[in-house]
Amino acid sequence: MGVAGRAVPHLLHRHRANASGGAAIVTDTLTRSIVDTALNVEFGDLPEPSQQMVRFALLDLLACTVAGADDECARVITDWVRDLGGSPHSAILGTPVRAPAAFAALANATAAHALDFDDVSLRMIHPSATLVPALLAVAEREHRTGAELLAAYAAGFEVQARICATINPEHYARGWHTTGTVGVLGTAAGVGRLLGLDADRMTHAIGIAAASAKGIRKNFGTMVKPLHAGHSAMHGVEAAELALRGFTADPEIFDGRNGYLDVFTTPERGDAMRAAFAPGAPMELVVSGIGIKRYACCGALHPALDAMERLTADPRVRPDNVVRIEARMNDLAPSILVHHDATTGLEGKFSLEFSLAVYLLHGRAGLSQYTDEVAADPELIRLMHLVDFVVDESLPVNLAYFASVVTVELADGERRTERVDVQRGYPELPLSLDELTEKVRDCCSPRLAAAAIDRLIGTMSSVEPVPDVAEITRLLSVGAR
Amino acid sequence: MGVAGRAVPHLLHRHRANASGGAAIVTDTLTRSIVDTALNVEFGDLPEPSQQMVRFALLDLLACTVAGADDECARVITDWVRDLGGSPHSAILGTPVRAPAAFAALANATAAHALDFDDVSLRMIHPSATLVPALLAVAEREHRTGAELLAAYAAGFEVQARICATINPEHYARGWHTTGTVGVLGTAAGVGRLLGLDADRMTHAIGIAAASAKGIRKNFGTMVKPLHAGHSAMHGVEAAELALRGFTADPEIFDGRNGYLDVFTTPERGDAMRAAFAPGAPMELVVSGIGIKRYACCGALHPALDAMERLTADPRVRPDNVVRIEARMNDLAPSILVHHDATTGLEGKFSLEFSLAVYLLHGRAGLSQYTDEVAADPELIRLMHLVDFVVDESLPVNLAYFASVVTVELADGERRTERVDVQRGYPELPLSLDELTEKVRDCCSPRLAAAAIDRLIGTMSSVEPVPDVAEITRLLSVGAR
Repeated sequence: MGVAGRAVPHLLHRHRANASGGAAIVTDTLTRSIVDTALNVEFGDLPEPSQQMVRFALLDLLACTVAGADDECARVITDWVRDLGGSPHSAILGTPVRAPAAFAALANATAAHALDFDDVSLRMIHPSATLVPALLAVAEREHRTGAELLAAYAAGFEVQARICATINPEHYARGWHTTGTVGVLGTAAGVGRLLGLDADRMTHAIGIAAASAKGIRKNFGTMVKPLHAGHSAMHGVEAAELALRGFTADPEIFDGRNGYLDVFTTPERGDAMRAAFAPGAPMELVVSGIGIKRYACCGALHPALDAMERLTADPRVRPDNVVRIEARMNDLAPSILVHHDATTGLEGKFSLEFSLAVYLLHGRAGLSQYTDEVAADPELIRLMHLVDFVVDESLPVNLAYFASVVTVELADGERRTERVDVQRGYPELPLSLDELTEKVRDCCSPRLAAAAIDRLIGTMSSVEPVPDVAEITRLLSVGAR
Repeated sequence: MGVAGRAVPHLLHRHRANASGGAAIVTDTLTRSIVDTALNVEFGDLPEPSQQMVRFALLDLLACTVAGADDECARVITDWVRDLGGSPHSAILGTPVRAPAAFAALANATAAHALDFDDVSLRMIHPSATLVPALLAVAEREHRTGAELLAAYAAGFEVQARICATINPEHYARGWHTTGTVGVLGTAAGVGRLLGLDADRMTHAIGIAAASAKGIRKNFGTMVKPLHAGHSAMHGVEAAELALRGFTADPEIFDGRNGYLDVFTTPERGDAMRAAFAPGAPMELVVSGIGIKRYACCGALHPALDAMERLTADPRVRPDNVVRIEARMNDLAPSILVHHDATTGLEGKFSLEFSLAVYLLHGRAGLSQYTDEVAADPELIRLMHLVDFVVDESLPVNLAYFASVVTVELADGERRTERVDVQRGYPELPLSLDELTEKVRDCCSPRLAAAAIDRLIGTMSSVEPVPDVAEITRLLSVGAR
């Protein structure tokens, strides 16, 4: 044969031993530093305000889940899960249905995010909507303690928030929904912690979870957005449970070609991520924290509503005495708050006019304000027409804070103005227990008796002493099986 | 206030009506053209050779699934699914376990792809490993006919193969595993067809499925690669079932910002995709087709093995009479066929030396050749050392075909050479029924009685007349429950 040939040097390419071959896992990788963080975070090392923030986040998320259980998207998922059947290990909150842990996590996380009333991270992820349902379902089945639940939450939070801090805002700007693309990694880490995975199995759990990282923003505004949270919870449970059973993945999913960084961000982000997961790196629970929503609407409306709360503290600021409301917001606000003539509760959630008017009329902006009945109230419609939405280019533009300046003009010509840059409930301005319990009652009262809500609040105000997480879910199950 | 202000024009931003608001779905979108293809493909419109190719693909996939059920990754998934419990609607093939359709699909698709012995599309996806398990599980539960199964297969195949044809090889080169990122869309389309979804619900099914498009190549070579197929099957069933129950998604998931094209390819690909899904566009089942593997090893080895098959047809070419084997392959081959001194069956699957030696010794290269016991045979090891692996830069380089030139030198100095450019089993050179049944027996005999295998082959040789798909799965269930 006349062609040029060359012999292949034997062992030219050293092959990575197949997973089932039991090769040792390399320990100086980015993947392993993420695993080390997941295994070594201690809830007790957090300063007390951060510990309290986590306890509040848990209570808040449970309340959002109970409220969300009534939403159509959660009802379809719960019915589907009920029809699948299976081992009744874990409760679907606010319902009488029980399901295998992975599917209780799916239903509860979908409900938790259904109303978009659940907490947010300033790193651009809904942190608790994936974590809490997954951890709760597994902790209930395994009869873990409240202290173990908190430790697992902290571990899962740090994994997902540090990844988000590294890859956003670019990752989000490319069209990805972090609650799906990153949340599943945090959930796998948290559940893995709860199940006591060792470092090698935790490494596989992270690799398995990366196979389920997904979710695109085009589905925002549909039932699929909460389903992203549901899937992250379900697949996080799955990943940790499969790893426990010996299922294996690539042990370097954050390292090298064709891995997580390649498809979801850029390999260059690896350096920043390594720093974020280095030993002694700052805790995101301390530096960015958790934002809890007081109002049942788009987060961009919260500073304006806080301003309205301050204004209406004056008894003269009342519906029959206000002749004009001017609200100044940044340049980004109009692309989000698009419903100027909201005619439904859902549109009201993205309406500055509706929200300010409803607060003036009802003295609050909770779940029972954002309804179609309220939207049809002629008095509300009259007040909405008093609102002038003004873009003020001097106000700062970012996705976490929507500084707002609200002015009310009274019948006698007097004008009062309040400016709010950071909403209450965000890490800088944590809620009081009273404020949180008001939201919890608002969320839970349609499904739970007042005494049960009181017991829930009492239990969750100090989670550590709970000897068995099943006590928590028992409080939140409704009706006979 | 001294800042510049401007009023927000009311209705500046027309808001897309929320999915639950029941807005009409726009029908001139790319998304809708994909839906129309899914709904309108007719199996009977295919030319007979393509119809036969599909029937063979179904039989082949069932056999691969039964064989794969013994693999560790499939066993872990089946045990997990069994422990979840639930409605025993659908069989997990090769086992006595029954499960809800979505989870039978998960287990069967993982098994189907476990050995990498399942079929391939020249558009760079494993087409049947996701489709067949999902369709089978739902068709069994719903007691659909063989003809309906074939129609659903054709619909799902066209959706995923046309998307792959449009976005590859770039999509794959970016690190995505198409069996996960595209397979779930084909599966949702196929199951949706089986469930009789109308156009609007099929649109939502595609939108829901897009939320589960995922899977990264870093996990190749681990248990997670088959799990990608498993997830695509499971989430395809889920998407169609949820859409049937009224769950809704963005109806334009392939159109506009932050959608499927933005995250997985580029918006510019939309034009090519529109052409691929236009009315009257070519059927991928006809133009690219399905490649079926005859040998239980990496596809890159198949042309060389076909050459060895031809050489050993001469009775003088036998182990005690061959003194040297030279195999010339393209420049890409050494990066794939990395195990020159394979010492296990698994390494043998990526070893030119092992594969040619084992064919010479056993007269075949099926599942029972790629074992650790065979790899330890001193005679095999002696023959492996006769193989010279030579890179021939004159041979064409592409991912579908690995043209190979194999020369054997006999003890008397005589040399025989065969060159193979396209392997048997690929669309250009379809298998005979005898060749396929040999593979089916090889795959099924460890778990099924010979009579059951015969009945399976008889049933699948002509699928249309099957009145109830449950008859097929009954043949493949093993042992009492």
